[in-house]
Amino acid sequence: ETLSINWLHQADVVVVGSTKRKEIPVSWIRPGTTIVNCYPDFLSGKISLKFERWIQSQQYREWNLHCLKLQPLSPVPSDIEISRGQSPKAVDVLAKEIGLLADEIEIYGQTKAKVRLSLLERLKDQTNGKYVLVAGITPTPLGEGKSTVTIGLVQALTAHLNVNSFACLRQPSQGPTFGVKGGAAGGGYAQVIPMEEFNLHLTGDIHAITAANNLLAAAVDARILHESTQSDKALYNRLVPIVNGVREFSSIQLARLKRLGINKTDPGTLTADEINTFVRLDIDPSTITWQRVLDTNDRFLRKITIGQANTEKGFFRQAQFDIAVASEIMAILALTTSLADMKERLGKMVVANDKNGQPVTAEDLGVTGALAVLMKDAIKPTLMQTLEGTPVFVHAGPFANIAHGNSSVLADKIALKLVGEEGFVVTEAGFGADIGMEKFFNIKCRASGLVPSVVVLVATVRALKMHGGGPNVTAGAPLKKEYTEENLQLVADGCCNLQKQIQIAQLFGVPVVVALNVFKTDSHAEVDLVCEIAKQSGAFDAVPCNHWSAGGRGAVELAQAVRKAASQENRFKYLYNLELPIIEKIRIIAQKVYGAKDIELSPAAQSQISRYSKQGFGNLPICMAKTHLSLSHQPERKGVPTGFILPISDVRASIGAGFIYPLVGTMSTMPGLPTRPCFYDIDLDPDTEQVKGLF
Amino acid sequence: ETLSINWLHQADVVVVGSTKRKEIPVSWIRPGTTIVNCYPDFLSGKISLKFERWIQSQQYREWNLHCLKLQPLSPVPSDIEISRGQSPKAVDVLAKEIGLLADEIEIYGQTKAKVRLSLLERLKDQTNGKYVLVAGITPTPLGEGKSTVTIGLVQALTAHLNVNSFACLRQPSQGPTFGVKGGAAGGGYAQVIPMEEFNLHLTGDIHAITAANNLLAAAVDARILHESTQSDKALYNRLVPIVNGVREFSSIQLARLKRLGINKTDPGTLTADEINTFVRLDIDPSTITWQRVLDTNDRFLRKITIGQANTEKGFFRQAQFDIAVASEIMAILALTTSLADMKERLGKMVVANDKNGQPVTAEDLGVTGALAVLMKDAIKPTLMQTLEGTPVFVHAGPFANIAHGNSSVLADKIALKLVGEEGFVVTEAGFGADIGMEKFFNIKCRASGLVPSVVVLVATVRALKMHGGGPNVTAGAPLKKEYTEENLQLVADGCCNLQKQIQIAQLFGVPVVVALNVFKTDSHAEVDLVCEIAKQSGAFDAVPCNHWSAGGRGAVELAQAVRKAASQENRFKYLYNLELPIIEKIRIIAQKVYGAKDIELSPAAQSQISRYSKQGFGNLPICMAKTHLSLSHQPERKGVPTGFILPISDVRASIGAGFIYPLVGTMSTMPGLPTRPCFYDIDLDPDTEQVKGLF
Repeated sequence: ETLSINWLHQADVVVVGSTKRKEIPVSWIRPGTTIVNCYPDFLSGKISLKFERWIQSQQYREWNLHCLKLQPLSPVPSDIEISRGQSPKAVDVLAKEIGLLADEIEIYGQTKAKVRLSLLERLKDQTNGKYVLVAGITPTPLGEGKSTVTIGLVQALTAHLNVNSFACLRQPSQGPTFGVKGGAAGGGYAQVIPMEEFNLHLTGDIHAITAANNLLAAAVDARILHESTQSDKALYNRLVPIVNGVREFSSIQLARLKRLGINKTDPGTLTADEINTFVRLDIDPSTITWQRVLDTNDRFLRKITIGQANTEKGFFRQAQFDIAVASEIMAILALTTSLADMKERLGKMVVANDKNGQPVTAEDLGVTGALAVLMKDAIKPTLMQTLEGTPVFVHAGPFANIAHGNSSVLADKIALKLVGEEGFVVTEAGFGADIGMEKFFNIKCRASGLVPSVVVLVATVRALKMHGGGPNVTAGAPLKKEYTEENLQLVADGCCNLQKQIQIAQLFGVPVVVALNVFKTDSHAEVDLVCEIAKQSGAFDAVPCNHWSAGGRGAVELAQAVRKAASQENRFKYLYNLELPIIEKIRIIAQKVYGAKDIELSPAAQSQISRYSKQGFGNLPICMAKTHLSLSHQPERKGVPTGFILPISDVRASIGAGFIYPLVGTMSTMPGLPTRPCFYDIDLDPDTEQVKGLF
Repeated sequence: ETLSINWLHQADVVVVGSTKRKEIPVSWIRPGTTIVNCYPDFLSGKISLKFERWIQSQQYREWNLHCLKLQPLSPVPSDIEISRGQSPKAVDVLAKEIGLLADEIEIYGQTKAKVRLSLLERLKDQTNGKYVLVAGITPTPLGEGKSTVTIGLVQALTAHLNVNSFACLRQPSQGPTFGVKGGAAGGGYAQVIPMEEFNLHLTGDIHAITAANNLLAAAVDARILHESTQSDKALYNRLVPIVNGVREFSSIQLARLKRLGINKTDPGTLTADEINTFVRLDIDPSTITWQRVLDTNDRFLRKITIGQANTEKGFFRQAQFDIAVASEIMAILALTTSLADMKERLGKMVVANDKNGQPVTAEDLGVTGALAVLMKDAIKPTLMQTLEGTPVFVHAGPFANIAHGNSSVLADKIALKLVGEEGFVVTEAGFGADIGMEKFFNIKCRASGLVPSVVVLVATVRALKMHGGGPNVTAGAPLKKEYTEENLQLVADGCCNLQKQIQIAQLFGVPVVVALNVFKTDSHAEVDLVCEIAKQSGAFDAVPCNHWSAGGRGAVELAQAVRKAASQENRFKYLYNLELPIIEKIRIIAQKVYGAKDIELSPAAQSQISRYSKQGFGNLPICMAKTHLSLSHQPERKGVPTGFILPISDVRASIGAGFIYPLVGTMSTMPGLPTRPCFYDIDLDPDTEQVKGLF
């Protein structure tokens, strides 16, 4: 076959063809590709040289990063003031500094850019950097600062130790930003900037998920209505209409016929039975598990009745809205490894059962392609920067309550190529290590095939005192004096939780560095005590961190400890074998990770497990939906509870994302607005266009 | 006052101050500004020269546009194939070509950019170009091609006549894109490219509206719940909490106190009565008019019951979701003139009445600032290009059913500056001229203060035959032979509708050019007949257009006619005076525009009118919610119906947007998915990342 090549005006495209020109992306041509019968100008020395240069340009590029100077103030100003006080680099400058090619980024405003997945192909022969997970001990309801540690650590590594590093963070839901929790860009002098861009809309990924999720939901109910009110013939005439005198199946319909074992391509030749099979999904409305979503804290949508207008002819039913990040499509975005893989996962999502108990999928509804189209840009991670100008990926943010609560596989993979062999990628797992870290290893690392080098376990004196028997910590209420005055006994007693979480990490064979996130009320003695106990409990090292008040400089000791730990021998292993029965996998997590005596399944849970096993979903990993406020299922049991039986009330599945999720008690999937929501303080100055009151 | 100036590293910022430096935008400094006590380096000749150059750079810049060549194929390929066959210019190149400064755009990927409103300040002394409205005759349900005429006209003006021009289009809802209607980027060789970027997500404006709209909706129900379940004291303690030992009102709360006539700033000094007034909005749930929205065709959300979870304690109520573009926030986006104006309008939106019948606003709920923050980027128009590389703004798309169905005032205003005095801005009004054009003049032109130069009235032989008595035209069904074969009698009879629509435009004193959008089945005789009758009916000119098959070249004759018409004397006037009573304004529209004998108000409509008049909203313009398929309220009455009484079933108000909207019959605010939605043909190729099947 003849093949000719020529340059166009766009740097990322070459023309290939003999008589008819055809454009292909440059990324298809790799060093070593044989090129024959080129156009004359390609064969000229000038163009050949250009081609050599191009091949050169495709190699890994060393970083040439200019960090931003920080001058921390005391007392530490508000997050938005700190964020606004720093001028971020233009994102295209940042991208160039870290070796991205101009055609590998899509700029969104001055400070955000999406990065194309083609980079993974270009750098496929590049060795990955070190892979660091930031997890935490069992937290108070206030959170113990995993995001700030993540950002402080990369600021320290890159801006202070001159080591390439990347932070990979989750995109936060806008619901809590305006509700109770506030933003999620870190805090103090360890932040992603501009923090308002991070917290609001970003590059539209969650909006794309909302659109895709709700298109599928609308398709489910509309299909039930149309099937219920039309004969087979009427349905068939509408589904396969005569257009300009021709009647044809669409490619989506041909695929469905194939799945149904009907090997016909002419719509005129189907028998009445075949038509019936083809046109009817026969969805059982009582089995619908696909919910609508919104990225708003709207408690009144937790339980609703839909379809009450006359036009829906009495087909009302009970339904609910979840927060957008709880959508299975978010979990897919976080776990997918390519566009083709995402499309396949979207098609496999189960939305209900049919009246024979068989799963009905997005693919059966013919909506896979449309969902992939809606998600085509969301799959690209968003590049931003820290306060010190080091690179950050923000990508995906599956709800830790019912999904795995980890940022995306694709962002981690791209970052691991970009940092180079000696560089570090720091990624974060939601909730305590018993939940977020366990899922990181057993679900996310399985999906990606990546091997973690180090676990950073974040602890605070505050949370340890709570585990040691300190009074309740409640969001919104002032802290009791036990937490603001030195109390070594409470700290010592509470370190049992830290010890247990260290042991959990060790189950997976990964070295642990404890990062003690220091508050201004912590005494030296308290800090020293925690670090001492942590090291005695098996941590590779334990260091205090002051990134919140000092930026990267406050986390240099942590960065050094992490570098040392990463050079340790790696004995990473999964906790369970996928081939084990679902119940066995649940029991292993409950006993080995949570410290339960055993598990107890409700009848509903048992019947769901046998259904999933029969449907062929038994070999999926397990994603426990358990409170993060205790190692057990009871939030009030602090420290290291023992002897408890973990009750599994129900078992559900995210087949597209690829996990089974047992419910340990009720998990809320839609937060609400409190009496005084965050939005009371949020404002926009119309003259300066500046956002106020975000935190 | 002393004032000193110096340059920073960023080109758009100067430093002003005597001892303390303060940054202000360069746009505040205009030619003629007196600057004293500058820093020494500013006083040096070098910097002075730089300042001169900068002042020069702020002036209007002539265009230097490189148009893209079109080579139309026959038969005309599908829209997406045509779109993909053309390589758009990089959007930053386009922006530079049309005189935008580098800091006036925010790039979103390769082909879209948001344009900053600061341009309006920079070019405030520049004379506006000519302002052309594209409207249509009463259409068939298939639409008669207003968008393609709009795009064909600018392609002709700029790529073929070398006259600066800008098309201003609405952003389409994603609901219909995946439902029945398909995309809205034009069609054939008159399109905005890339059409999939136009039709999907764009730069996230509709997603921002959805987020803002639903935050307000969630705030309404949450507030009712919290007020219903808490004492005055508990509410007050939560709304004005002690933080770090200090109790303070937020600025939003201080503003509310002021509105309530309570001139206190210390939370400790309010009396019990004042606290009661302050903490309770006392919303009457039965009066809530603020609905939730989604940008999905989801018919099952047309009527729902919300709040049925136990956590909502029995406060369930009936509600609905509308399509996102029906949100009042979309109407505000389309009518606003600045960030400050948008914020003010958002605050004025009425969501319900209190138990005393007084309006409750977004401002009362304390959410104005948060809404403005969510909308801060959406207010900037999005720059794209036509198939021939000429500039297009895409911005706002209020639902023509219940709002004014016109693209944004801001996009038109910016475009009118950019094209220069001799250039043209072509904007489009939804539905037929009796609806879209009437609202364009009476609502949009009133909000903007802009004066239109020409109306282009789009007609098709198909629609005229329908008005002449041809058989029904239905979406999805093949056209009857009357429409595909020559029938001069039907055409002649149907021209009454064209004549009437011309007369409606003449009520406003604006010259009319009829654009006959030619289909391949139209005969020469039919085309000539329409143009002849149009001219006899008072049109300034009437010309056939072939932009769909030929691109701009097919609309050159139209472009020439529009240029001539624009040089006519302008006698533009509004149809009614705002000070007239609401009923009088409705009657004027019904009689003078629709040709009704009179109007008839339901008791509900009457009581709403007196309520709005009492509440001080009587001086707003009127936005009729009437079918577009007939000049009357009965879709089946084609041609020019007479003698009918227009029934007003209800009257509602969009106070933030600034109009009263009477309902003429029931208007659907949530489309549904048909048996075979568009998404059956939509797919994504995971290897090439190309979208298929969009139209």
